[in-house]
Amino acid sequence: MNILIINTGSSSLKYQLFDMEAATVITGGVVERIGESEGILTHKTFDSGDVQKNIITRPIPDHQAAMHLVADQITQGIDAVGHRVVQGGESFKAATLITPEVKKAIEANNPLAPLHNPPNLIGIRVAEELFPGKPQVAVFDTNFHQTIPEKAYLYALPYSYYTDHRIRKYGFHGTSHKYVARETARLMGKRPEEVNLITLHLGNGCSISAVKGGECRDTSMGMTPLAGVMMGTRCGDLDPAIFGYLMDNTGLTQSELDEVLNKQSGLKGICGKNDLRDIHDQAAKGDKNAALAVDMFAYQIKKYIGAYAAVLGRVDALVFTAGVGENDEIVRAKALDGLDFLGIDIDEAVNNVRNPEAHTIHTADSRVQVWVVPTDEERQIAIETQAVLDKS
Amino acid sequence: MNILIINTGSSSLKYQLFDMEAATVITGGVVERIGESEGILTHKTFDSGDVQKNIITRPIPDHQAAMHLVADQITQGIDAVGHRVVQGGESFKAATLITPEVKKAIEANNPLAPLHNPPNLIGIRVAEELFPGKPQVAVFDTNFHQTIPEKAYLYALPYSYYTDHRIRKYGFHGTSHKYVARETARLMGKRPEEVNLITLHLGNGCSISAVKGGECRDTSMGMTPLAGVMMGTRCGDLDPAIFGYLMDNTGLTQSELDEVLNKQSGLKGICGKNDLRDIHDQAAKGDKNAALAVDMFAYQIKKYIGAYAAVLGRVDALVFTAGVGENDEIVRAKALDGLDFLGIDIDEAVNNVRNPEAHTIHTADSRVQVWVVPTDEERQIAIETQAVLDKS
Repeated sequence: MNILIINTGSSSLKYQLFDMEAATVITGGVVERIGESEGILTHKTFDSGDVQKNIITRPIPDHQAAMHLVADQITQGIDAVGHRVVQGGESFKAATLITPEVKKAIEANNPLAPLHNPPNLIGIRVAEELFPGKPQVAVFDTNFHQTIPEKAYLYALPYSYYTDHRIRKYGFHGTSHKYVARETARLMGKRPEEVNLITLHLGNGCSISAVKGGECRDTSMGMTPLAGVMMGTRCGDLDPAIFGYLMDNTGLTQSELDEVLNKQSGLKGICGKNDLRDIHDQAAKGDKNAALAVDMFAYQIKKYIGAYAAVLGRVDALVFTAGVGENDEIVRAKALDGLDFLGIDIDEAVNNVRNPEAHTIHTADSRVQVWVVPTDEERQIAIETQAVLDKS
Repeated sequence: MNILIINTGSSSLKYQLFDMEAATVITGGVVERIGESEGILTHKTFDSGDVQKNIITRPIPDHQAAMHLVADQITQGIDAVGHRVVQGGESFKAATLITPEVKKAIEANNPLAPLHNPPNLIGIRVAEELFPGKPQVAVFDTNFHQTIPEKAYLYALPYSYYTDHRIRKYGFHGTSHKYVARETARLMGKRPEEVNLITLHLGNGCSISAVKGGECRDTSMGMTPLAGVMMGTRCGDLDPAIFGYLMDNTGLTQSELDEVLNKQSGLKGICGKNDLRDIHDQAAKGDKNAALAVDMFAYQIKKYIGAYAAVLGRVDALVFTAGVGENDEIVRAKALDGLDFLGIDIDEAVNNVRNPEAHTIHTADSRVQVWVVPTDEERQIAIETQAVLDKS
């Protein structure tokens, strides 16, 4: 069975075609700069180790045009389509076969994810036109977090804000947390139910989850992807009085301030850069704010590890994933420094060697295992899409 | 030496007169409902175990009138006055003899604490008139937290928000955290430098601090006293996108929303009540939201304990203080449940017995000691006032 995975962002569209029997990616790529004067499609075809790359630049006015362009590249048969959808709210506890009712429910969640759910819906509608009669499945970023208990997902606001305005923690990156949690359990030779994990998805966006026996119990992102640890350009957790204070004192409007918190904060706010490779270079040259940004980031990660250890009661392994988690040994080492009391002891020499495969970085004496596991959200979406089809 | 301690709130004024040689309180009381149609003064005189109480009700238009009323009650000589001041910003690392420059610096911090610093300043000015020539000392709520390192006190916002708008974590309840940290070290037979403590001030306001070798390294309140764990009526930590979302979706103005987050949230927001004694009663009668409020509160405390254990690396003792911390065995037990991995083991039978004296509630096997220590902010202010005078 060939399953096409579609992941639409606000101005991009990523896709991969999986051959599920062979468990391989046949073809895949990304459309970028949708809506800008010059769009770009990068299409790759994989054939027994060889990669053939095809780049097309032309104006790509909208997600509909992007989807048509992608469909033109794919010469293989498609049996089903799996869509990443960001915000499932409380409507979706798991991946779901898309029906007219499901599309309505996704639309009803638009206010909770105004930048993400609308393009996700366009992706679904165009895929239905392009591949008529093929089953379409939605896999939500929020699915994996729907097991978080009420005491952890509620904010201490008037209860009516939850019932009337749906204010609660939803969490994001769920597909990634689920994938690496399953994968790490497998690599440990355990079933997911047997292990307690803290999964750290550290990329452009960052989120950390407490996973107990395969179920998510808490996560650092909140109602939106702005909360939790600081990120490349996002602020993460703040005193809730700061928003109003800044509106009173900076002269910024609410939407300008929103833009600052999302695009001009985080690592970039502290040191002017948001790519940690550049930041480490700057810090090595003596840039104090670059060093400070790294220290803040690692410190906030460390506090979440401690907090989630308290949530789990027993931690069997930490799992680092995504761009920073997989490749930044400095952040990993700083975040884990001084956590001996938790039984965490990493081997610095091993930590310092980049390794694209899943691997451990703890010492033989470490009570808690520390894994670096490459995430693969598209593969997880493909797996869940097939599971939905097998059941239906 | 007799030292008068003045603690002015937005509509109240508390005071105590200490005999420093005897280490006793001679007299003290509280003025409430300042500015309302009927004010009330409760004045107590302590004489070798006997307490004489005097209550005066009359309109008390402002803090100046309140101070005069208090001065009328005090027949003993006064050698010095110690003032609690809420927000010292970065100007004050320690208690300070009040000079014209100090008053200007306090005034410069008014924007950071608009409800608290102005009445604190009035208290100082009226005390100067009432007790001319007597030294006056300011002890700031933020003093104890000035040792928090930059990586912990900065928010991941544009760095200019710190330099231009003074946006950072200041922390509050510092006098209480300092008092119980010193007192607990003493009771453990150690010097403050020898112990790592997590101090939990849980009252109407709640804050939790990580105290390493006598110095504060992090605290849960932030730029304002709204941040951290949820409180009686305050929300505590929120996703920073929620403020704007609520402004867009509830029709509330910024200042109305501010009022909701400060006065209608926390325990009260979840279950309608903010006094934990009432909430436990309601929960016992089957009120699900009352039980939920307690569970949320304990859960948030537990996460801070884990986070601050990670900050400290080694925890020697936890210290519960203030109204809830000293008297609520249910919250203590729930917050500490499942923290065996930290070496925390409490004796439920001991925990369940109220005891107004400082005492431990851990078992003989607990690696981490767990203390309940009554706070005494006024005594700490008196101690620091005398120390300033001894040095000057």
